[in-house]
Amino acid sequence: MFVGEKLQQTTVNMEGEPLSALCTPAFVVDVDKVKRNAQQMIEHFEKLGVQLRPHMKTHKTLECADIMTGGSRRCIVVSTLAEACFYADHGFDDILYAYSVPFDKIERCAVLSERLELFQVLLDHPDALEQLKKRPLKDGRLWHVWLKLDCGNGRAGVLHSASEAVRLAQAIAETEGVQLTGVYAHCGNTYNCRGVEQIQTVAQETTSLTLQFVEKLKSVGITCKSSIGSTPSCSHPVKDMSQLSEVHPGNYVFYDVQQSLIGSCSLEDVAVRVLTRVIGHCPHRNQLLIDCGWTGISLDGAGKLPTGFAVIEGHPNLKLVSMTQEHGRVEPMSGPLDYSKFPLGTLLTLIPYHSCATAMMHPVYHVHSEGRLVGKWTPTRGW
Amino acid sequence: MFVGEKLQQTTVNMEGEPLSALCTPAFVVDVDKVKRNAQQMIEHFEKLGVQLRPHMKTHKTLECADIMTGGSRRCIVVSTLAEACFYADHGFDDILYAYSVPFDKIERCAVLSERLELFQVLLDHPDALEQLKKRPLKDGRLWHVWLKLDCGNGRAGVLHSASEAVRLAQAIAETEGVQLTGVYAHCGNTYNCRGVEQIQTVAQETTSLTLQFVEKLKSVGITCKSSIGSTPSCSHPVKDMSQLSEVHPGNYVFYDVQQSLIGSCSLEDVAVRVLTRVIGHCPHRNQLLIDCGWTGISLDGAGKLPTGFAVIEGHPNLKLVSMTQEHGRVEPMSGPLDYSKFPLGTLLTLIPYHSCATAMMHPVYHVHSEGRLVGKWTPTRGW
Repeated sequence: MFVGEKLQQTTVNMEGEPLSALCTPAFVVDVDKVKRNAQQMIEHFEKLGVQLRPHMKTHKTLECADIMTGGSRRCIVVSTLAEACFYADHGFDDILYAYSVPFDKIERCAVLSERLELFQVLLDHPDALEQLKKRPLKDGRLWHVWLKLDCGNGRAGVLHSASEAVRLAQAIAETEGVQLTGVYAHCGNTYNCRGVEQIQTVAQETTSLTLQFVEKLKSVGITCKSSIGSTPSCSHPVKDMSQLSEVHPGNYVFYDVQQSLIGSCSLEDVAVRVLTRVIGHCPHRNQLLIDCGWTGISLDGAGKLPTGFAVIEGHPNLKLVSMTQEHGRVEPMSGPLDYSKFPLGTLLTLIPYHSCATAMMHPVYHVHSEGRLVGKWTPTRGW
Repeated sequence: MFVGEKLQQTTVNMEGEPLSALCTPAFVVDVDKVKRNAQQMIEHFEKLGVQLRPHMKTHKTLECADIMTGGSRRCIVVSTLAEACFYADHGFDDILYAYSVPFDKIERCAVLSERLELFQVLLDHPDALEQLKKRPLKDGRLWHVWLKLDCGNGRAGVLHSASEAVRLAQAIAETEGVQLTGVYAHCGNTYNCRGVEQIQTVAQETTSLTLQFVEKLKSVGITCKSSIGSTPSCSHPVKDMSQLSEVHPGNYVFYDVQQSLIGSCSLEDVAVRVLTRVIGHCPHRNQLLIDCGWTGISLDGAGKLPTGFAVIEGHPNLKLVSMTQEHGRVEPMSGPLDYSKFPLGTLLTLIPYHSCATAMMHPVYHVHSEGRLVGKWTPTRGW
């Protein structure tokens, strides 16, 4: 190790230090809130008797996965095959790769299917089924397949109402070496909601459409599981969700400003922040410069908040108006800035608009309990 | 190494393989274009007799730094202290940390200053000078300081016209243990230009204002260097730039769609792409889904291009209309999509709007020459 490296905070043991000891920008995670958010979700679905299969895409770390699975290291969803490999390499199993199985990754999926007790894939097109047929698994193993259903989200999936949806389910069920495990719907359309009532309307609709589809399959002799998910719907589950086999929310472990606006949580529940410092005074523009650009918080949320790209905690009159790679421009929403309150070096705290996007920008997360550092989490990246 | 890891392309030797062998999304770099772009910039400033100090912020890799410095591993600019440490740890020297010296990183800067032959910092406020004074360097070494000047860019720096600019330069020059190395201006305002004439107007203005400031300092007995930079201005240098000591462009080594629109380069010169594949057909929405979301190309460029978040090479009628974490929605600008031309698995090539932002999303860059893979570059991350 070189001298220079020793002074990089990624390699220094800072346990017990206050957050203010961190160099900025820094992504910080309140582990107590994470545990509380995770526990609340576990309890929601224990009460409903539904299997919680938490999504790893927001954080992509082992430590947070342990918290979300209650230490079982079983029954998770991932958004990339890199995540699947990362978790598999660390003793996780029963992994659902909830992404229309990409043809360039069939071999890697096959290897995981042969290696793990249970690796599950998802598809929404007959051509994908053909790809699986071309790569039968060894030792009599089966491809475990979820059919992706679009119940109004408008992204991936066969339309719940389309006749080819049932035909595709039948084709999966009838294919040798392949098992139709379940029907999977992501209700990302809850992200357009405002308030619990709207969220629950979408949750109900997605649940009903998914269960109706499962019934339709039963009528043609196919029995399989059902899963719906999104952080808003699972934060405020409706009663009928008890009839589902599984749910698969993910962002809830961190939450963010977006989720608080949707109504999934309160701003108090948001477990993550970006710490930043004032690095410039620009009185001729009535602005401060901070050391958080788009590499520190992401460009997500543009135009969505009166306070700009984030909420600046404790300063409701400040707005993060624009960013370049390593600079943020902050100005008051009204009136002149009182620079005496923000000397160079002043620590400011940003609450991210979208924690998935912000976490993605950081190679390490600094974890604290009541403001004292307790460790670091290192996410996996890539595909 | 586990079985699963062996199949991740980050650990497999793929040299000699065609680009189509890559799993997607993948960030790919045409090393011949990189070398050509780098060589052109070297020649521009050899001709003008000005020291080129290339900026590392776009790529943050050793290999590209070697190409930009012609193998000297000397005379570079960095945007983060993590970059400075990374390059220092790999034998680079004469490093300018071109960022208003952050108070939380003074100690790390001091250590680099004591360790390298030449480590240079930048400031724009008297309080920063006070911080340097509080941490005198060992063995009689000097803090090498550039004064950051704002010549119309509107980000960091003291205004060139402000009386405190000269006073701050004097204070730096007069401080024991500190040396005023030069005056540094970033002409990021060239990013608002369209065409060479507008670029050269800003380049001329920034050059003139910087040189006038240097003259002003001479009149009070201070001699120091001068440096201006930005990819547009350095791609089309004006004659007066020959009077500068240094220039510090960075993005030119990759270029991107934004630079081609500004007029820094042609689209032909852009050395980087994101490879992606079709993973879904959505005829009810007249859309394709691709496996590149904002984790693959970034959210930069929103609303800036008729083709959406990127240019889809060879398909001028296609638009990347929206993205979520791992999905992109592509639709034709007019008419119905002919799905027979885009079967699932079809490879598409995205030219990034902003290569700095896109590169930032990738833990590894796949390097090719004429479409055959020749290696991988691994960037440094963090701060």
